[in-house]
Amino acid sequence: MTGPSLHVGIDVGGTKCLGVALDAEGNLLREDRRPTPRGTGSVDRLIDTLVELAGSLGQYDSLGVGVPGLVTREGVLRAAPNLDGVADFDVAGGLRARVDTRVRVDNDATCAALAEWRLGAGRGSNDMILVTLGTGIGGGVVAGGALQRGHNGFAGEFGHMVIDPYGPPCVCGRRGCWERYASGSGLARLAREAAVGRRVSRVLDLADGDPEAVRGEHVQKAAREGDRDALAVIDEFGKWVALGLVNLTNALDPDVFVLGGGLAVGADLYLEPIQRWFGELIYSPDLRTHPRVAFAYWNERAGAVGAALLDQLDE
Amino acid sequence: MTGPSLHVGIDVGGTKCLGVALDAEGNLLREDRRPTPRGTGSVDRLIDTLVELAGSLGQYDSLGVGVPGLVTREGVLRAAPNLDGVADFDVAGGLRARVDTRVRVDNDATCAALAEWRLGAGRGSNDMILVTLGTGIGGGVVAGGALQRGHNGFAGEFGHMVIDPYGPPCVCGRRGCWERYASGSGLARLAREAAVGRRVSRVLDLADGDPEAVRGEHVQKAAREGDRDALAVIDEFGKWVALGLVNLTNALDPDVFVLGGGLAVGADLYLEPIQRWFGELIYSPDLRTHPRVAFAYWNERAGAVGAALLDQLDE
Repeated sequence: MTGPSLHVGIDVGGTKCLGVALDAEGNLLREDRRPTPRGTGSVDRLIDTLVELAGSLGQYDSLGVGVPGLVTREGVLRAAPNLDGVADFDVAGGLRARVDTRVRVDNDATCAALAEWRLGAGRGSNDMILVTLGTGIGGGVVAGGALQRGHNGFAGEFGHMVIDPYGPPCVCGRRGCWERYASGSGLARLAREAAVGRRVSRVLDLADGDPEAVRGEHVQKAAREGDRDALAVIDEFGKWVALGLVNLTNALDPDVFVLGGGLAVGADLYLEPIQRWFGELIYSPDLRTHPRVAFAYWNERAGAVGAALLDQLDE
Repeated sequence: MTGPSLHVGIDVGGTKCLGVALDAEGNLLREDRRPTPRGTGSVDRLIDTLVELAGSLGQYDSLGVGVPGLVTREGVLRAAPNLDGVADFDVAGGLRARVDTRVRVDNDATCAALAEWRLGAGRGSNDMILVTLGTGIGGGVVAGGALQRGHNGFAGEFGHMVIDPYGPPCVCGRRGCWERYASGSGLARLAREAAVGRRVSRVLDLADGDPEAVRGEHVQKAAREGDRDALAVIDEFGKWVALGLVNLTNALDPDVFVLGGGLAVGADLYLEPIQRWFGELIYSPDLRTHPRVAFAYWNERAGAVGAALLDQLDE
């Protein structure tokens, strides 16, 4: 029995693997998930998990996988801070040895960019940048009507662009990386600094009076209540997000930024400050159409949907 | 009489227009130059100058022009700080009304990127970034095997990427733009600051003892003499150049940077510090091949040669 063509995409996260099955028109037919293997031998068990999860979604014609970390253009995961024991792990090779179909492996944020570009908030654009604002910052680039990977496959590592060489230390060993300011952990840091300075009493209340316990959610909640101090932190956060978008615009001049990741759920709070600061910080604001700032359509499914679409790229 | 095809390219600079004629294989057959019109009515006289200069180079099949400033994809010069009276000047339209051949107009640094990519130091690359280090910083992007212009045509305005939000004021009205550090004027500023602090006595000698008179050339000359203080300024300069290259690498992952502009003449002094700092500042330096750093092949002819090549692009 031959059915219509089916394309499976799996997004490998630190805690779970999310799989989706799309038809040739990009309709989402099914989804399923499995825990990401942890601990000793987890690399081998990850291949088992991916094969089993893909099989659970039906008889598929192609398998795409998005993995977190630096992925070469051959589908080798060079390093992945959120997966156990990964170093030079040939994900594509491991899968091809096990399944009898086309296999593509790419960076998870690159996959998410593909999903938003083809089927989401960046549809129709020739020059789109996806920025995922989560614990860190990742992303993907569409330029000149093509998904860009760069020479090593590492394009879109926006989080480690240095925007303040005298700024706070980053986990990467450098200082003032964009993700120290404009990510979820950056928002929490800005809020904790305000809390230590006693500038955000309502936020501090929500964190039971402990500045060290302040998280981004506390700022969001207080801001939604209309708390002015919390809104000031959101404004500062918006400035830092805008600063990175400005730098990317000076380099690449996109017509749309799609913002994804965990912080996209606070979209209504951030949009106005980001756009206002963008206008302040961009070079020659009066001589250009400003890029649209949109929030991701696919949210937590973006990586899996994009992985399923990898098979469609002409490469 | 019909000869082989001839492609004219003209680079419009603040003081002169440089024209070249290439054959279909990209060989440079002829060149000529004219002063760039200044003062009242210079915009109309610029069209006259371009038509006359092009004609002086032979009977041509296409005319390409590179202009300094923000150029739309339709060839309209939105603004050009170094040309008199320019605002929304339709260069392409003005030329098409006068000449009976194909006309293309683009940003001068975008043209230079095309020249270095097709016929120069970036030949064979699919992911090349040209950075011109002159009075300011400009550049152009090749990504995924295609010359990128961006949505408005403004891609490659690297000089106004903000790398230090608390840094010195920039002519653009913002603070800490990359070109405040990594351009010719940035080098002079770093040297003047060192001179005021009496850290660079030999450099100060060369400037007749006046810290305000210190220029980049004085630093280069003292550094070539082996002066340690001057070499320390060059090292700091190299760090700032590298910081911007790192940010572009995190975003686009090129395999080669081509450095052009006036500072490329000091190439031998800068290369080692730039590469060393690049290794310090790049994310995950051990997991990637580092981009090659090359110096421009075409130097002051890059814009004109690239303008002549515009006709070859499939667009």
